[in-house]
Amino acid sequence: MDLTATTADLAGAAAEVARLLPTRVHDPVLAGLALRTTGAGEVELAGSDRERAVRLARSATVHTEGTVLVPARPLADTLRTLDSPQVRLVVEGSRLAVRTSNARFALPLLDVGRHPGVPALPPLAGLVSAASLAAAVLPVAGAASRDDALPVFTGIRVHAVGDRLELLATDRYRMAFATLPWESRGPLDVLAPASLLADVVRQPAPGDQVSLQADLDRLGLSWPGGSVSTALLAAPFPDDRARKLLEAVIDSTVLVDADALAGAVRRATPYSGPHGSVTIQVDDSELRVKGSDPQNGESEESVKATVDGNRLTKTFQARYLTDALKAFTGKRISLRIQDGLRSTVLTSPAGEDGVELTYLVVPLRTVV
Amino acid sequence: MDLTATTADLAGAAAEVARLLPTRVHDPVLAGLALRTTGAGEVELAGSDRERAVRLARSATVHTEGTVLVPARPLADTLRTLDSPQVRLVVEGSRLAVRTSNARFALPLLDVGRHPGVPALPPLAGLVSAASLAAAVLPVAGAASRDDALPVFTGIRVHAVGDRLELLATDRYRMAFATLPWESRGPLDVLAPASLLADVVRQPAPGDQVSLQADLDRLGLSWPGGSVSTALLAAPFPDDRARKLLEAVIDSTVLVDADALAGAVRRATPYSGPHGSVTIQVDDSELRVKGSDPQNGESEESVKATVDGNRLTKTFQARYLTDALKAFTGKRISLRIQDGLRSTVLTSPAGEDGVELTYLVVPLRTVV
Repeated sequence: MDLTATTADLAGAAAEVARLLPTRVHDPVLAGLALRTTGAGEVELAGSDRERAVRLARSATVHTEGTVLVPARPLADTLRTLDSPQVRLVVEGSRLAVRTSNARFALPLLDVGRHPGVPALPPLAGLVSAASLAAAVLPVAGAASRDDALPVFTGIRVHAVGDRLELLATDRYRMAFATLPWESRGPLDVLAPASLLADVVRQPAPGDQVSLQADLDRLGLSWPGGSVSTALLAAPFPDDRARKLLEAVIDSTVLVDADALAGAVRRATPYSGPHGSVTIQVDDSELRVKGSDPQNGESEESVKATVDGNRLTKTFQARYLTDALKAFTGKRISLRIQDGLRSTVLTSPAGEDGVELTYLVVPLRTVV
Repeated sequence: MDLTATTADLAGAAAEVARLLPTRVHDPVLAGLALRTTGAGEVELAGSDRERAVRLARSATVHTEGTVLVPARPLADTLRTLDSPQVRLVVEGSRLAVRTSNARFALPLLDVGRHPGVPALPPLAGLVSAASLAAAVLPVAGAASRDDALPVFTGIRVHAVGDRLELLATDRYRMAFATLPWESRGPLDVLAPASLLADVVRQPAPGDQVSLQADLDRLGLSWPGGSVSTALLAAPFPDDRARKLLEAVIDSTVLVDADALAGAVRRATPYSGPHGSVTIQVDDSELRVKGSDPQNGESEESVKATVDGNRLTKTFQARYLTDALKAFTGKRISLRIQDGLRSTVLTSPAGEDGVELTYLVVPLRTVV
């Protein structure tokens, strides 16, 4: 292999591959980044740890074709810190040399034959816009659990229904449900790791079209110049129970600016006490956001709102409410409050990206 | 107390006081921030934990004079997150209310009588420019140890000699020595905590004049609108040994751009091996920066330099060299290399701020 490429291009791709690969592996071959010239003035950077697989193509002037496997992290670190605009990658003996006019970084060649390979993408299921996918996946992923002890709650249920793609995640204390426009090419109903999806949807350019590709074992996303695939989560997702939560019986509906309410919740957080809780009191044409802390004192702030229905008081985990409101940044939301300990439902009208988002937050048992 | 002030002004001062106070204290009174109207259209924010003391004055429209003590952290958090440009602070019963048009945050009043008080500043020792002081203290503080087990190495020796102020710190592996212009008003020779000084010198505006004030127990810094004082470190500083290190016997002198060398060291760091070491080889009109790592491979980069003296090879801890070079950002430095395991001395000509900086880094024993 011998090629010349734009440093920034390669650096970005190497960083993405290194980021998706595990950092602590027993076998350094699994932390290897595969470089392969593809004969079309391109070099492909790829990696896989059996669970995840990533391939990114970048333009290059190829002097000699070839395929090599090198440690991902030092390659990414070196490319990131180079100040030379162009870089040459050339195999020299048992090393891949990363060369600029005044420097040479020599990475050991790892045994390509011992690498499990980067699995091919499963068949096409359908197409979405990259911008809509990101707008839908990011808030939904935020409602998933980060606790690997209960894998089912770390996933996003990805389900194609007619011309809409449905995304659903819950950690049992809150739940996010988004739908977005979907161009179907086949069935799709999988449970995929939320954290990986949140990472991947940031990679395509907002104007790109993203293909979703799936079979019984894997979900893949591909876009011009790149693809990522992941093993699915096997655990059965409590679909029916989750969907039942969406059938809300509304006691009170409040229209309010998401950012104004988020600001008030943020300012109440120092007064959120040992349980980190804030209280929302529905009043005439306003919400009163209250906090009370044995050490720090009390807070009360009113936020203008349009109220339809009963006057109610609900207590929430401040950080769950903050997460939920962040998903609606810049939007006017409808806050639909149910009686008792049933969830409060946040929604906003679909924007230009066609994404409809519903966020449920379970209130806390209030001390009377 | 009843006053109105600009939120951003108060927020900045409250954040500084909260930052200098300890966060985990047994007695909440010690984490208290004292607010006091001073009758001159000003409010003073102050705090002290016996070791450190801070006073900052800010403009305010005072409606009723008074002094209160409230928890520092929630006050700072609340002021920081307010979006109202003006804020009113008013005592209401057992609370200090922080009020805007639509919100009220009620902080409990702590017992002023139980607070140890904010000690007065010791007598004036001399004056320095804030910009020069920051330019000298920040790199010197970087050479101090962060390990409280050896308090003497966590300090900066501050010593006035004629019309220069000398600052010296070492953690035994590197040493930084700076001098700056000093307008003397009395003797000054103290050992003060480096981390606190590094924090405090960022607070005055660069154009301010800073008074250094000291007695046998405390060092104080004061500037228009604020002051900080700290208990001194009692341990005897190894002055003579440190100063002896400055009497270098030079084997080779290299003139090189600090940023270019820092970049090369940064790029060699992924190849710095289990000891995190990089090797500098002095060659004809260049330095060769080399790394070698059993997993990641090897690196070699040349940096243009003017070399006078013997060709030598030295190995350094990469992060110590990086710290040293950062102290000379944007400057051309002289790298004076001594034989054997004696320190390498970095210096640069004094800039407009009159600060002269000398940085010593001890090389590692090289494996032949």
